[in-house]
Amino acid sequence: MANDEKLGQILTQLDNGLDQALKRLVAFLAIPSISTDPAHKKDVRDAAEWMGTELESLGFNVKIHDTPGHPMVVAKSQPGDARSVLFYGHYDVQPVDPLNLWDKPPFEPEIQDTPNGPVIRGRGAADDKGQLMTFVEAFRAWKAVHGELPSDLILLFEGEEESGSPSLRPFLKEHANDLRASLAMICDTGMYSDGRPAITTQLRGLVGEEVIVRGADRDLHSGSFGGLAANPIMILAQALAALKDENGRVTLPGFYDGVEDLSDTLRKDWEALDFDASEFLGRVGLKTPIGEKGRTPLEMVWSQPTAEINGIAGGYAGDGFKTVLPAEARAKVSFRLTSKQDPAKIREAFRAHVQSFVPDDCRVEFHAHGGSPASVMDTSDAAFGAAKQALSEEWGRDAAYIGAGGSIPIAGDFKEILQMDSMLIGFGRDDDRIHSPNEKYNVESFAKGARSWARILATLR
Amino acid sequence: MANDEKLGQILTQLDNGLDQALKRLVAFLAIPSISTDPAHKKDVRDAAEWMGTELESLGFNVKIHDTPGHPMVVAKSQPGDARSVLFYGHYDVQPVDPLNLWDKPPFEPEIQDTPNGPVIRGRGAADDKGQLMTFVEAFRAWKAVHGELPSDLILLFEGEEESGSPSLRPFLKEHANDLRASLAMICDTGMYSDGRPAITTQLRGLVGEEVIVRGADRDLHSGSFGGLAANPIMILAQALAALKDENGRVTLPGFYDGVEDLSDTLRKDWEALDFDASEFLGRVGLKTPIGEKGRTPLEMVWSQPTAEINGIAGGYAGDGFKTVLPAEARAKVSFRLTSKQDPAKIREAFRAHVQSFVPDDCRVEFHAHGGSPASVMDTSDAAFGAAKQALSEEWGRDAAYIGAGGSIPIAGDFKEILQMDSMLIGFGRDDDRIHSPNEKYNVESFAKGARSWARILATLR
Repeated sequence: MANDEKLGQILTQLDNGLDQALKRLVAFLAIPSISTDPAHKKDVRDAAEWMGTELESLGFNVKIHDTPGHPMVVAKSQPGDARSVLFYGHYDVQPVDPLNLWDKPPFEPEIQDTPNGPVIRGRGAADDKGQLMTFVEAFRAWKAVHGELPSDLILLFEGEEESGSPSLRPFLKEHANDLRASLAMICDTGMYSDGRPAITTQLRGLVGEEVIVRGADRDLHSGSFGGLAANPIMILAQALAALKDENGRVTLPGFYDGVEDLSDTLRKDWEALDFDASEFLGRVGLKTPIGEKGRTPLEMVWSQPTAEINGIAGGYAGDGFKTVLPAEARAKVSFRLTSKQDPAKIREAFRAHVQSFVPDDCRVEFHAHGGSPASVMDTSDAAFGAAKQALSEEWGRDAAYIGAGGSIPIAGDFKEILQMDSMLIGFGRDDDRIHSPNEKYNVESFAKGARSWARILATLR
Repeated sequence: MANDEKLGQILTQLDNGLDQALKRLVAFLAIPSISTDPAHKKDVRDAAEWMGTELESLGFNVKIHDTPGHPMVVAKSQPGDARSVLFYGHYDVQPVDPLNLWDKPPFEPEIQDTPNGPVIRGRGAADDKGQLMTFVEAFRAWKAVHGELPSDLILLFEGEEESGSPSLRPFLKEHANDLRASLAMICDTGMYSDGRPAITTQLRGLVGEEVIVRGADRDLHSGSFGGLAANPIMILAQALAALKDENGRVTLPGFYDGVEDLSDTLRKDWEALDFDASEFLGRVGLKTPIGEKGRTPLEMVWSQPTAEINGIAGGYAGDGFKTVLPAEARAKVSFRLTSKQDPAKIREAFRAHVQSFVPDDCRVEFHAHGGSPASVMDTSDAAFGAAKQALSEEWGRDAAYIGAGGSIPIAGDFKEILQMDSMLIGFGRDDDRIHSPNEKYNVESFAKGARSWARILATLR
């Protein structure tokens, strides 16, 4: 009872403090912490320090750790006798180009009214600054009511999530004893649908590769050399086109090793979700699922691996026309992994595949960009059921166990390095435009997200 | 005899005037007349006016004609009773990117000493400003010796050759009576090899196409949508990769309609040239001919058609990594045509080919960039033999009849619209790096080129 009473006060506290909370988020979003772009190195640090100051003001014991890349922010509450829980989020954001497609400058965030209610518009609003602030605000309200923070909390904020987290694993290993908790809470995922909360129990892994094919030592005139000299764009196009067969299946040898079929239970659960692919694709102007024939749309994004070309460049693509055979062409390719696929083997198979298209007088260069296996959570842990229940109460609808197409390597790293299970709870929407121009986060996601964490904390404390 | 004497004086005049002639060329090259880039529109006009002033000072009657694009410079010498001859060149140049690969700024031309003798370095030095100045300097010397210009000359200088010559055909039609001569001299080609002069008797045609594939109405997160949503880069890569089969043959239906095999005479002549493909490719860091199996290297560049990707762009190709499925991807593709291939049919076949790879929820857009058939000259005209003889005397080596892989649509347009044959004589070298960084023109090509025109004029006047 006492606890329920306190919880009620915390929820009220959150409701009354919403405007102030939004002001804090807007200030946080205004920092252009693009981790992949060296030009923004200082901005990333500024974001880390902004967060550090914020947490200190709440009474956390904060350390900002330097790494070879961007800083790690670690904060701890006072010790107690509760189950220790680590909360994770990332304070870095994606690049913003193409800038001309933004209605407002990406780092001048603002609250906008939309037909679906007010939203916070700006880069990072949903991925991940808006989301991580939901639990920070929950701690703030908890302290206001209890007079102290929830005990035995560890907060870990990363600044390299959008650039492959190069420093993360070494950091987890070096500070394992400091960071190990009995459970991790990761707030970087979405709800199943507007208004229907979810706990993500499986995530796809990721292998990123940049490939550069080099031919002649200069751009060549396509008249003088065309038909005789190798064209790096054609070599690259042929290698990439051959990654998939006519059924949408990836052709790399051994690519599907370790891919398990969906359990009957999960298959039934997912069928019950009544996912409408054409409606989902319709929101972005598409309609036809292009995945492997015979797979359901949810399998295509949640439990099947993919090969995608994320970027390509070569020769002259500007205004007008330039009849050259370019000296080089480059592409960025990423693979989403499921079940037990091995990132290292898939990287190896991709490089061998491309190499086989490169003639003896051309060269190819590869750069690895992150590699992480898929994660599948153990939902038998009682904390999962309790959190599912808390979410259902807050949102007034049954929370769902779902998969996610995106990759959150940290979940796999927590398991491997800290032997710690992760619970993935987030409040993103499919139309949040993460990684795209005009990214937004619904104010409802932010407000009820914070309330959800308050409820979940109550089940843990 | 009198004529031989005069010719001797003209050649001496050219030798003594070389330094001044180089100064004029350097001034001409300093004008950044990049026709394909709207930002350089005024520079292109400046180059036209520079040329107009130059020709007026020689006593030509000059008109600079406006067109919907860049100006046409037309100049005429006094009438006489000689065979009327039109000289053609283009005063526009290619774009300069990648700028960082230039040793010196492309529009700060200078004479540089090299192991192969002095060269004029700068964009346009060989293509085509340095070349067209060879006949302008020949006219200048002729006038100095004869007291007047050679009679019955028409000069035509174009400013859109590097951007598909959109205004050329309408202009030729509108001014046909003003421009028709009994023969055209085009100085925009190369010698067969260093020191061996040549007359180009066949040229490949060109069809240029820009293609843009559009998918979702925004860039998508490759985690949330990868495997389900169409990826325009993959669609484009698969369409372009399928343009050639494993034997290097173009797969478009009807592509080879009208392609004639080499005549036995020309095949023998070309074999006699002892073309060393690995040496030719070795100069640009390559070694293996990639053309259709069973073709000789000279056939690949001179008498066989090609399909080449000149540029491609899509998604994020900058520093770092961005896991998007881009909203669009674009490429520039060009086809070199031979014999009687029909540009319109090939453009149509290409568009149908790409269209067949585009799923029903994506769109494709095409932009035509010039289309011209191949040209094959009638070498039975006595002027060819006389010019061949004059070139052989100037260079002390037998001039060769050769083919060219490049496209000079003007030759076909002259034939079609003005019923006028063209003689293609130029002094470019294979290592001139035309269309590439550090373009140059050998001073020897410039000096002996002008002397060659003086000799050829003597055979015509």
